[in-house]
Formats: sequence, C-alpha cells, structure tokens
Amino acid sequence: MGQTHRDALADLLVWRRDVRHFRTEAIDGAVLGRLRAAMDRAPAVGNARPWRVMQVEDAAKRAAVTANFEAANARAADIYEGEAAQKYRSLKLAGLHDAPVHLAVWTDTAPAEGAGLGRQTMPEMLAYSTVAAIHTLWLAARAENIGVGWVSILDPAPLKDLFGVPATWDLTAYLCVGHAAEDADTPLLHRAGWQDNTATHWDVV
Amino acid sequence: MGQTHRDALADLLVWRRDVRHFRTEAIDGAVLGRLRAAMDRAPAVGNARPWRVMQVEDAAKRAAVTANFEAANARAADIYEGEAAQKYRSLKLAGLHDAPVHLAVWTDTAPAEGAGLGRQTMPEMLAYSTVAAIHTLWLAARAENIGVGWVSILDPAPLKDLFGVPATWDLTAYLCVGHAAEDADTPLLHRAGWQDNTATHWDVV
Repeated sequence: MGQTHRDALADLLVWRRDVRHFRTEAIDGAVLGRLRAAMDRAPAVGNARPWRVMQVEDAAKRAAVTANFEAANARAADIYEGEAAQKYRSLKLAGLHDAPVHLAVWTDTAPAEGAGLGRQTMPEMLAYSTVAAIHTLWLAARAENIGVGWVSILDPAPLKDLFGVPATWDLTAYLCVGHAAEDADTPLLHRAGWQDNTATHWDVV
Repeated sequence: MGQTHRDALADLLVWRRDVRHFRTEAIDGAVLGRLRAAMDRAPAVGNARPWRVMQVEDAAKRAAVTANFEAANARAADIYEGEAAQKYRSLKLAGLHDAPVHLAVWTDTAPAEGAGLGRQTMPEMLAYSTVAAIHTLWLAARAENIGVGWVSILDPAPLKDLFGVPATWDLTAYLCVGHAAEDADTPLLHRAGWQDNTATHWDVV
C-alpha cells in the first residue's frame, strides 16, 4: 500500500457521516451489489461471518419500524429537561421516511460457521463482527457517494417478531441507505451543538 | 469520491488480515500517532466516542495478558474432539509474543459525552462504537502496511483488575500491532481449512 491508499482512506473517514437527510431517488441495484460484496471482505471472529442482512421493501414493515422508532424516540426525549429536552426534540435522528433503502442487519448468535473459535469467553465477538461488516458497508457506500444512517433508537425485541427471524438472531442495526442531501466533514451532532468531537483517549501503561 | 477511492478501499479490504505472525521490529511513533488520529474519525453513537486505548508497554502486564490467553485457549481447545481438537491446537491464534505493540481497548459504558443520545434502548451501541473505531484503526494500519490481530480468547474480568480501570470500563478488544510476517489476500482460517469464506446472507423482504 502507498500514499494513494492512505489519502483515499483519509478522505473516506473525513467525509463519512451518519446521514439523516436523504434524497428519495432509488439506489442502483449494481451499487447495492457492490456494497454487499464489500461486506464479504469484513473481518469476522473465527471467520464465522454471522451478519444477516434484510433489505426491507415491504411498506407495512417499514411503517412498523418507523412507528417503533417514533415511540422509542419520544421515550428517549423524556429523559432530558429544559433546554436539553428542547434541543433533543429539534434534532433529526433518523431518515426512515426518505431513505430509499432500509436494511435490517441481524447477528446469528449461534452460527455453525467458525465452530465456536474465538468466541468462548467473549461471545459478543459475533455481534462485533457484524458491526465491523456494517462499518465496511458504510465506508464502501461513502466511496460510492451513498449515505448511510444507523438508527439505534429502536426497541429491538418487537422487531424480531415483526420480521419473524430465528430465535438465535439479534438485531444489531437498522440502516437507512440513500443519496445524502448534503456532504459534510463534521458530525451533525457537533454542528448542532449537542456533542463536540473529542480526541481519542490513549494512555501508555 | 471517485474510482480512485473505490479501488483503494477495495485493496485495503482484500489485504486486511487478522495477523498472528509478526516481525518484532518496533513501530514508528509517528505511525501510531496516525492510527490514533484515524480513530478520531470513527463513527460513534451520539458522538460519544467511548473508546479508551491503553498502549501496554509494561512487561509484567503483557506477561499476565499472555498467561490469561494461554489459559483461555487451553479451555477453548477442550470443547473440540478428535480431528477438530488436533486442528484447533495446531492453529496459531495470537501474536502476543512477537508483536511490538499491544493495545487494550476499553469501552466506557457510562460516558458523559453524547448525553445518552442513541443508546437508551440499545446500550450496546457504545461497545459497537468502539468496534467501529477498532476497525477504523485496522484499515488505517493496513494502509500503513502494519498488521493488526484481535485477540478475543481472553477472560476479560481479571483484566479489569490487572489494568485498574474504572468499574464502568469494559474490555472490548486486545490488539496486537506490528509488521506482518507475510501478506495474504485470504483469511488464515480459510487457508488452514478451519472455516472457508462464506458470502454475505442478504434477503429482500
């Protein structure tokens, strides 16, 4: 690898955002195929590759997820008081309405693949593998000029029933994917005055 | 972003490995500084940036971590029988002895930053943010021709005492960092016949 790789990765990291403002135009199927292929290259404990992606096209399912978000977000807002509560309610925290692609990303917590290697003492390594695959998709999307938003303000238990997944599957993320309405090199929550960027805490011991 | 970015990211993904075979030569401090800076660009729930990195130089602490791994790995080997047990014991699963840099990466599960945004219903989003930061470091290291190995065969509880971390910090990963003894475009566990690569499971619903 050389300077070209380092510069390209730096660009991707600087311009990758958690996107909540999407344009509604569709994403080309070939682009989605390349995002899926990028996930094939993500790291996985024991090479188990436990991520299970559902591309949610069904309108009723999308509406149910949106209602789940809205209820969870209303409850979350209630923990704040005064100015913080006002500010929280003014933030746009998900792009579920406009994003053309919704992805429910699950982790199989008991996959045959990998035969248990690397996850006896830290079984959370399976979900962590899925997170690395999601981050891989996120960077690959940024390289395709596609935005991704991770919706975590959800009550995950009812979603297992909604999608009828096996009992061993847990929801890791619900992603909105589409063309971002704008590009920005600074997180929205920093720009909105909710939480400034902080530097990585790094000690030598 | 253009084709240069897509090609560079593809190279990084193809050639990123979980490295267990390291050369012992030191890593330049400026390179480590760039890896730390890359983590500053990682995504984080509520922009909370809950990762806490400890660069472990102390020989006694390194020896204790290595002993923790060896005990956990011996217990893990006991779950296999026959040929699988033989194969498991033949795998090199950590490069703790040779890697010049050890990083213990913790997650603060109760950070002030972010003020709780995005993690009321899925508190695991904090550890997931740390995982994305680790994957960011991993790719940045690959771009610098530095290898990273994620050691997950550890009993995490005693490590909290060993490092004297606050009660709210959990171990997310213990990383070996150094020059890789070889480059490869295929996971070691695939090459060793433990677990072949599988394609990403992707359904439309």
